Amino acid sequence: MSVTAAKGFTAAGIAAGIKENGNPDLALVVNTGPRRAAAGVFTSNRVKAAPVLWSEQVLKSGQVSAVVLNSGGANACTGPKGFQDAHATAEKAAEVLGRGAIEVAVCSTGLIGLLLPMDKLLPGIETAAGTLSEHGGEKAAIAIKTTDTVHKTSVVTKDGWTVGGMAKGAGMLAPGLATMLVVLTTDAALESDVLDRALRAATRTTFDRVDSDGCMSTNDTVLLLASGSAEVTPEYEEFAEAVRQVCDDLGQQLIRDAEGASKDIKVEVINAATEDDAVEVGRSIARNNLLKCAIHGEDPNWGRVLSAIGTTSAAFEPDRLNVAINGVWVCKNGGVGEDRDKVDMRYREVHIVADLAAGSETATIWTNDLTADYVHENSAYSS
Amino acid sequence: MSVTAAKGFTAAGIAAGIKENGNPDLALVVNTGPRRAAAGVFTSNRVKAAPVLWSEQVLKSGQVSAVVLNSGGANACTGPKGFQDAHATAEKAAEVLGRGAIEVAVCSTGLIGLLLPMDKLLPGIETAAGTLSEHGGEKAAIAIKTTDTVHKTSVVTKDGWTVGGMAKGAGMLAPGLATMLVVLTTDAALESDVLDRALRAATRTTFDRVDSDGCMSTNDTVLLLASGSAEVTPEYEEFAEAVRQVCDDLGQQLIRDAEGASKDIKVEVINAATEDDAVEVGRSIARNNLLKCAIHGEDPNWGRVLSAIGTTSAAFEPDRLNVAINGVWVCKNGGVGEDRDKVDMRYREVHIVADLAAGSETATIWTNDLTADYVHENSAYSS
Repeated sequence: MSVTAAKGFTAAGIAAGIKENGNPDLALVVNTGPRRAAAGVFTSNRVKAAPVLWSEQVLKSGQVSAVVLNSGGANACTGPKGFQDAHATAEKAAEVLGRGAIEVAVCSTGLIGLLLPMDKLLPGIETAAGTLSEHGGEKAAIAIKTTDTVHKTSVVTKDGWTVGGMAKGAGMLAPGLATMLVVLTTDAALESDVLDRALRAATRTTFDRVDSDGCMSTNDTVLLLASGSAEVTPEYEEFAEAVRQVCDDLGQQLIRDAEGASKDIKVEVINAATEDDAVEVGRSIARNNLLKCAIHGEDPNWGRVLSAIGTTSAAFEPDRLNVAINGVWVCKNGGVGEDRDKVDMRYREVHIVADLAAGSETATIWTNDLTADYVHENSAYSS
Repeated sequence: MSVTAAKGFTAAGIAAGIKENGNPDLALVVNTGPRRAAAGVFTSNRVKAAPVLWSEQVLKSGQVSAVVLNSGGANACTGPKGFQDAHATAEKAAEVLGRGAIEVAVCSTGLIGLLLPMDKLLPGIETAAGTLSEHGGEKAAIAIKTTDTVHKTSVVTKDGWTVGGMAKGAGMLAPGLATMLVVLTTDAALESDVLDRALRAATRTTFDRVDSDGCMSTNDTVLLLASGSAEVTPEYEEFAEAVRQVCDDLGQQLIRDAEGASKDIKVEVINAATEDDAVEVGRSIARNNLLKCAIHGEDPNWGRVLSAIGTTSAAFEPDRLNVAINGVWVCKNGGVGEDRDKVDMRYREVHIVADLAAGSETATIWTNDLTADYVHENSAYSS
């Protein structure tokens, strides 16, 4: 049930007229308390959208009362006017909800370089506030979709407390930190520093390792809001694991819905000297267009895996590299291994293991194949 | 023409049966002297093909008598046997030509991870040697094609001396140094250290700035052979400029023939703090799949340019960035600039200017659009 699975939250999703096709495009998530601790992580793209710049300021206090999210426009590269619009959005929500604007985070997604239609967005906030509900999580998740074909939600319920959330993202999906909008909620009673620690730990190994198309967004935002409504303070480790599970589940949903993709590719790097090496190698493999095309064609072209590994600075010896595709070790000691005809690639999920034979660290990056449908979806119109 | 435009060289190109379709697949270039100075630059991919490892040894002496080149197989990731095969190839050519094997460079291109059919290659060298001719440059250029639709040659003739060359390359085209095979020849009388200096200077701003698909090859090789046959020793600056012109021309031919491409994109980064910054930004833009799709769709989607710039470590302020597409400044000061509908993108060449407003350095990277044809060509069969 998305962001309203945890107690102490209401949500709404409506069509405010920001999208020309009349689809839902405005979501509101409100923390009804008693607490309002929060944490957030944002894109590491140095070109940041106005709502990111605004929300980074909001999160400095560690307190978030409400989040306004819109699809239909990224409000990125829109200059001082764009920042004024993000600010005005927060002010309007604060006024309607009776909160302070500095506790209202704002998230936007859509085309870069266009100003938002504030004449539609501001009245929309008033309409959305009028439909806020403890069952509104689903509608909110639907309202933040862009090219997503399905809305994405996840919930983990533990002993007396819950972590839930929603996500959107289908293209420009290569986090640094996370190319997507995500709002997580919990009714656990926790302070913002604990939320921050758990959220950073979770995103580091989940959203941060989703790399569908190598393109980092200007609008990435992951927020975690805690209402304290459950009146339970879980152990840190247990809470952090619940947050990680929800992030992992949402990250998987993003990969499965990536634009034009026909394959979900799990790139597992093993026996690396360091975790950083494993991530660097995994990302290099995941971003290799030739390999992504080969996987699309169900061709276990391991030479393209080795050529991708060879561009990294990770510790390895070329003649000790091993590569398995769907369980068949097609490359051994940097050369020809088992018969590549043994590799069965009929299914959507493809598992590549790259063995660096240089240590004991590991990392897994998720990506997609490169398809004509991806090209079509990203060339036929602006997005 | 091609590698036989300069005096003191013979060449041949034949079908040795390495390619199953019977197309030409073996080329031989021989320096008939009187000098045999040479220089070479090779892929910086750490997974290097056997012929690259062999030829790197050959070039250490600064002397090359002959080059054997084959298409139909990269001889990469083939282990000790692959290296033995590269060595045996050089030995065979040395025997047939009456030279030392350590003066015979070897280049291979084709699928990674397959051993070469030596039972066809070695007799082929004998056949090729029997057809060596001062007019064989064209045939040699044809024999090294893989997915190239046309063969590539270039010649610059100066006062009494000449620089000519041939190149192949259409995919896995993202140099570090150059994802291609190139053999350049000159009849100028120059020592190997001068050749090396001129070649490195030329490739740094030509092949090194061609980035069609972001995928770095295991087999890149650029060789420059000098016969001294013209008995002229040109001034260094004049010679280096001639080499640069030939490299630039061949690099342009590679971009124009890139797999599946419908657009050639010139990414010009200006007003960078350093040349390295300009190259980093240019490469980031050139490798952005979403932008490459947009260009394919003739969509001047400058937001994708800014999101690519934002992932770099170059010096810039987001609100001072400017972007022009085909002469229209669609982004000014990090926000909306001139009307994007003014951008005419009907022609094959697209010119993107990214103004970092952070200094006075510049660099130009050439790339292509991302098309369904590229996906098809790289997914429908192994290459």
